[in-house]
Amino acid sequence: MNYKDTLQLINSSIRSLQAYHLDPLETSIKLNQNENPYDWPEEIKKEIAQFCMDRPWNRYPPFIPEDLKKMVAQYAGISPEGVIIGNGSNEMILVLMLSLMNQSNRVILSQPTFTVYKLLTDGLGGQALCVNMKQDLSFDVEAIKGALIDNPGSVLILCSPNNPTGGYLSQEEIEVILEVHTGFMILDQAYVEFGGFSAISLLGRYPNLIITRTFSKAFAAAGLRLGYMLGSPEVISEMNKIKLPYNVNFFSEHVASVLIKNRTLLDGIIEEIKAERDSLLQTLRTMPFENVYPSASNFILIRSFKKQEIFDFLKSRGILIRDVSKYPMLQDCLRISVGTRQENMLLKDALREFFGVSGLNAECK
Amino acid sequence: MNYKDTLQLINSSIRSLQAYHLDPLETSIKLNQNENPYDWPEEIKKEIAQFCMDRPWNRYPPFIPEDLKKMVAQYAGISPEGVIIGNGSNEMILVLMLSLMNQSNRVILSQPTFTVYKLLTDGLGGQALCVNMKQDLSFDVEAIKGALIDNPGSVLILCSPNNPTGGYLSQEEIEVILEVHTGFMILDQAYVEFGGFSAISLLGRYPNLIITRTFSKAFAAAGLRLGYMLGSPEVISEMNKIKLPYNVNFFSEHVASVLIKNRTLLDGIIEEIKAERDSLLQTLRTMPFENVYPSASNFILIRSFKKQEIFDFLKSRGILIRDVSKYPMLQDCLRISVGTRQENMLLKDALREFFGVSGLNAECK
Repeated sequence: MNYKDTLQLINSSIRSLQAYHLDPLETSIKLNQNENPYDWPEEIKKEIAQFCMDRPWNRYPPFIPEDLKKMVAQYAGISPEGVIIGNGSNEMILVLMLSLMNQSNRVILSQPTFTVYKLLTDGLGGQALCVNMKQDLSFDVEAIKGALIDNPGSVLILCSPNNPTGGYLSQEEIEVILEVHTGFMILDQAYVEFGGFSAISLLGRYPNLIITRTFSKAFAAAGLRLGYMLGSPEVISEMNKIKLPYNVNFFSEHVASVLIKNRTLLDGIIEEIKAERDSLLQTLRTMPFENVYPSASNFILIRSFKKQEIFDFLKSRGILIRDVSKYPMLQDCLRISVGTRQENMLLKDALREFFGVSGLNAECK
Repeated sequence: MNYKDTLQLINSSIRSLQAYHLDPLETSIKLNQNENPYDWPEEIKKEIAQFCMDRPWNRYPPFIPEDLKKMVAQYAGISPEGVIIGNGSNEMILVLMLSLMNQSNRVILSQPTFTVYKLLTDGLGGQALCVNMKQDLSFDVEAIKGALIDNPGSVLILCSPNNPTGGYLSQEEIEVILEVHTGFMILDQAYVEFGGFSAISLLGRYPNLIITRTFSKAFAAAGLRLGYMLGSPEVISEMNKIKLPYNVNFFSEHVASVLIKNRTLLDGIIEEIKAERDSLLQTLRTMPFENVYPSASNFILIRSFKKQEIFDFLKSRGILIRDVSKYPMLQDCLRISVGTRQENMLLKDALREFFGVSGLNAECK
């Protein structure tokens, strides 16, 4: 077979996808991926390093990581039968879409949001139906309800707090949505430790609700690629059938258990990140941006007609943020992850320098 | 929504799957998962343990593991653009099936073989068309050719050397198949380091050929869950579009690089396993099994009407093997992984005890 004929054999839904690529840029201050800026302490890492020495590498992990499932279940306050562990919430979202999406199925998204939902919907041959957020980038709950009523049985994917906008859905809003919805709702709560309403308490009442969460953000373990889904045991047992066996490696599995055991170490860090976010929000609002959006997460979205100049200027100062201006509704927008106190100070200084405002004047009330 | 209505929303292709489960059984000698019985040496593990201490856990892995891709490409003798790295060859097979399988698509398998192919075909709503192996459990190349001619454009998945039978396809057989095939051929070569023909040299001539391989078997790293696919750059670039971003964690990625760098350490081990396999084959053939099948891999398939008694007897002696009697054509069959020299001796002793044959007599020519 020749190349041309061979490529024609690949699903057209895949061929028509744009290849997604993020160029690696080396900078000293990394505020572009919404990571927790603090690494785990040396004592914890030492314990794991010893485990790596002791654990035979040549042996498979357990068929199901039962111990980790129990710990995640306890942390989330549900039963272990309602938990699946995977390689990042990404893998969990893929498993959910494989289970819930018929090719004819419509997937309702509230945009702008995390790009993987649409990528997977398109790639798997589904039809993405995108409801725009309101002009202020808060969720348009009425429009979402309308789309659900018009498309019974569809899959709804919402992210709360939402990446990259920072807003969240209240308990009332989630309930209002679930009351009219006749399909599954996948609620991505990757950032929920930083704010917004955790919907775990609703799982018992709504079997069509599934929550995905991650160790990549508040849990300071993006390097592990670990996430999980939470749902009712009846539903989770079906999803388990299409999840690949032995999907999680022994290292990530073990580290996650240790991190959950030591999670109180995170409490102070999460409080600091939230306080830093609020302080950063306050400072940014004194600067001449077109808009600084409220955030219940560990990042802040800003809009500026000088977005390219700001991005380049910060880069020249060793600070990397994320250009999100290609997202729908986000022309001229940049997303800034909350860093350490020191990193945030350097960021503020650099922005003051960019705008030509002295630090004293800017912070004066 | 109530539970009953909710469950109806899950794809019927998923709901009709049997939940697959492998009960963990604790034994001292583990010959049930075709693992390499030797762990990596302490010096190598120490280097990695230090890396775990130094590498920040809170940071994402690179978007694409370029360094590892280059090393795998060099090891395989192809260009890095023809490589994708994933969580076990399982993830690679899923990505391939998502890219190649339309819902109407037929997937041709040569059975009995690795169960994940049919699980994914069924789960993704495809139609598995199973060609039986010959009575002696060698590949029925004529029957495969017939199925390909009857089903143009179908996806063909073959495993060579094949799990759990141990046989393999020769270069000539693979070429004969590729000459008539008008769809993609996924060739799973998880066991190829132990024997059979490596089809990498055919990649340049057949753009519809994709090979999957793994670090779980000869590379003695089943705990890492790392595998890869090899293909022509044009095809691989399409597959990359549906592969999840940041799919591989930093630990597995780094370990794999170190293992490839130190791969000459494996040479002696692989030679020993092959010699042990041949010696084990010879001994098993002196015993009253219905059949002992030839193997180009690190496991041996046997057939015995006393299969349950043998399994239980070995278990009582602390030796766990795999009951594969539920596979098509494999009624009364057991699969035994090749262990260390010491483990294989204990296995032989236990089998002699079971059959009531003295060791001396059995090995006498």
